[in-house]
Amino acid sequence: MQMREVAVIGGGTTIFGKFQHKSPEDLGREALLAALDDAGITPRDVEFGSCATVYGGFCIGQRIFKEVGIADREIVNVENACGGGATSLRESWFRIASGQYDIAVAAGVESMTTSPIAGGLIPPPPDDLDGQIGLTVPLFFAMMMKRHMHEHGTRLEQFAKVSVKNHHNGCLNPYSQYQKELTVTEILDSRMICDPITLLQCCPNTDGAAAVVLCASSVAKRFTNKPVIVAASALGSGDYLYRWQDMSFSDMSHKTAKQAYEMAGIGPRDVDCIELHDAFTISEIIHYEDLGLCEKGEGGKLIDSGATWLGGRVPVNPSGGLLSKGHPLSATGIAQIVEILWQLRGVAAKRQVEGAKVGLAHVMGGYVSGLESGAVSIHIFKT
Amino acid sequence: MQMREVAVIGGGTTIFGKFQHKSPEDLGREALLAALDDAGITPRDVEFGSCATVYGGFCIGQRIFKEVGIADREIVNVENACGGGATSLRESWFRIASGQYDIAVAAGVESMTTSPIAGGLIPPPPDDLDGQIGLTVPLFFAMMMKRHMHEHGTRLEQFAKVSVKNHHNGCLNPYSQYQKELTVTEILDSRMICDPITLLQCCPNTDGAAAVVLCASSVAKRFTNKPVIVAASALGSGDYLYRWQDMSFSDMSHKTAKQAYEMAGIGPRDVDCIELHDAFTISEIIHYEDLGLCEKGEGGKLIDSGATWLGGRVPVNPSGGLLSKGHPLSATGIAQIVEILWQLRGVAAKRQVEGAKVGLAHVMGGYVSGLESGAVSIHIFKT
Repeated sequence: MQMREVAVIGGGTTIFGKFQHKSPEDLGREALLAALDDAGITPRDVEFGSCATVYGGFCIGQRIFKEVGIADREIVNVENACGGGATSLRESWFRIASGQYDIAVAAGVESMTTSPIAGGLIPPPPDDLDGQIGLTVPLFFAMMMKRHMHEHGTRLEQFAKVSVKNHHNGCLNPYSQYQKELTVTEILDSRMICDPITLLQCCPNTDGAAAVVLCASSVAKRFTNKPVIVAASALGSGDYLYRWQDMSFSDMSHKTAKQAYEMAGIGPRDVDCIELHDAFTISEIIHYEDLGLCEKGEGGKLIDSGATWLGGRVPVNPSGGLLSKGHPLSATGIAQIVEILWQLRGVAAKRQVEGAKVGLAHVMGGYVSGLESGAVSIHIFKT
Repeated sequence: MQMREVAVIGGGTTIFGKFQHKSPEDLGREALLAALDDAGITPRDVEFGSCATVYGGFCIGQRIFKEVGIADREIVNVENACGGGATSLRESWFRIASGQYDIAVAAGVESMTTSPIAGGLIPPPPDDLDGQIGLTVPLFFAMMMKRHMHEHGTRLEQFAKVSVKNHHNGCLNPYSQYQKELTVTEILDSRMICDPITLLQCCPNTDGAAAVVLCASSVAKRFTNKPVIVAASALGSGDYLYRWQDMSFSDMSHKTAKQAYEMAGIGPRDVDCIELHDAFTISEIIHYEDLGLCEKGEGGKLIDSGATWLGGRVPVNPSGGLLSKGHPLSATGIAQIVEILWQLRGVAAKRQVEGAKVGLAHVMGGYVSGLESGAVSIHIFKT
């Protein structure tokens, strides 16, 4: 089928942080209103809405969209763990690309602070044997990090530099949860969470929401002179973590990246800026490799080279990433796209990637213990 | 856009009931394997998967599909409260109708028994004022029932007859949670839940899963000589309950039914059998009206007339419906479609609707208190 070209014509996000007095609905409304305002459209223009959440409860999309005046529309709520935001984007993209609707809104919302579930009241189910013996998320990433060090000689300082870079970028982003420069020493000396992962190499718990407005490129000129085009949308699934043949490489990301590059008709060298899923410092290092920014095993050298820092060849996580901007699960994937939108419009102020014309967003999510499996989604945008 | 015609080529469901030793994954796997087997396809044939759940946890689709051998595929998990199953169907339908994929699986899974959340550990959030003062689901439906009695003179016996009928049908369905004939007196004399709703007028808590295999009609003949065609797929949103202008009528269902009938090019008189969302007896009565089976206010008379009983003009809930077959939230919408598939194939045994050629499935879900809002989905199938 010939798909129609789709444009992003507006984006909005809340500040990311801990907001115990804001409900998921409060956060979602704020992001949604900002996105509609940025796009210059009214709620009645919106024909379809998608919303991602893990902890936001029943029919989160219907509730939030209704509050801003988007009613009587087809609304789909999606969940793909931390990959939910990108899945929400893809839902709206697909409805427009296939010609069913002209204008859609994709949102992602998470309030970790106010959720009684995210707070940890719920124990792992009895049949989750991995969970019962303590095989939680940081442990898997710690094993991956150890393996990367063993296989490729990657050093602790190289991992720490990812956190230095992303916290630096976060200081340039008023929407970032953390606004603090960190040194390699501070990062390596912070509290040990799971050897070799220290506290400042983990993304924090975060509340936040983000939304984007999409429309068919053919109608975008009614709303903006600066549409940003969706050049590729890919969503894959696979083994999220420890059943990889090679624990120091993300097969699932690699395959999906290949799909996305093919769809966009470009290669990794053509990308000017990237938002990727740096849940832990090791995550960013391995995603350098599976996205093709460097050879396998060379992620440590890439962060050393300066290529992924602001001012480098391909700045990664100019927003501050999950490590500094924060990680409100289902909001993350949409917030990444808001950042890419701002970068490609050239309005990212102090963290602007000069001359950015092509941006990529990568996010992944999964169920870690037991029947571990997950989702990865990659979107590529161009001016 | 010209949408492609889509066929249902297989369906499977677990028995509905309470299964404390079965996880959501166990239930989902059972339904999925039954559906694949019924369709005569292998897991590798499946190109896309959608799965609905409320309580099944992160990435339920990826986990279940992987277990039966559907890996490395695009998978989307959806939530639309009790309307999730139909939303899952629509996801798969849309991916095929738009030409992106040829073969997809849509599933719905819910284990109310094993979920620590569905069990009631989680109190209503502090800002859910309705929930805090006790405005729970049965109360809203009780108000609706009182209003219907007031406006239209509907009698308690008429509501009870819905439960008599559906429990009778459930006795003919080996997949039904309840297998017990009930009388009007037993139903009206059962424990009062919320006046005038008695226990035997409420759907039960249920565990279960269901799955269907869809494919482009153009390739269906590779698999079956008896495809069932998706004649209409509609998904709407709106006020779920008490903000309706008229509390005794479901605006949202009515509008979405209109869409579905238009898409199928038929009217209510052309439908041979219906599965609809009888969460309470009042639900079935008002959905008679909003689906156009009778005039507004005439739902009580319709059940009296016998038209919706097996052997009547348009049998409703031949499966036993939510009242007898049970209501595992996100599985319900898919299980309805499995029943319609069986009815249109003519294999529904003792509960077969003679000569059924057109079937309709209606399901709705919503968030009741606070910012109440919901989803409704209607699918029409034909031989």
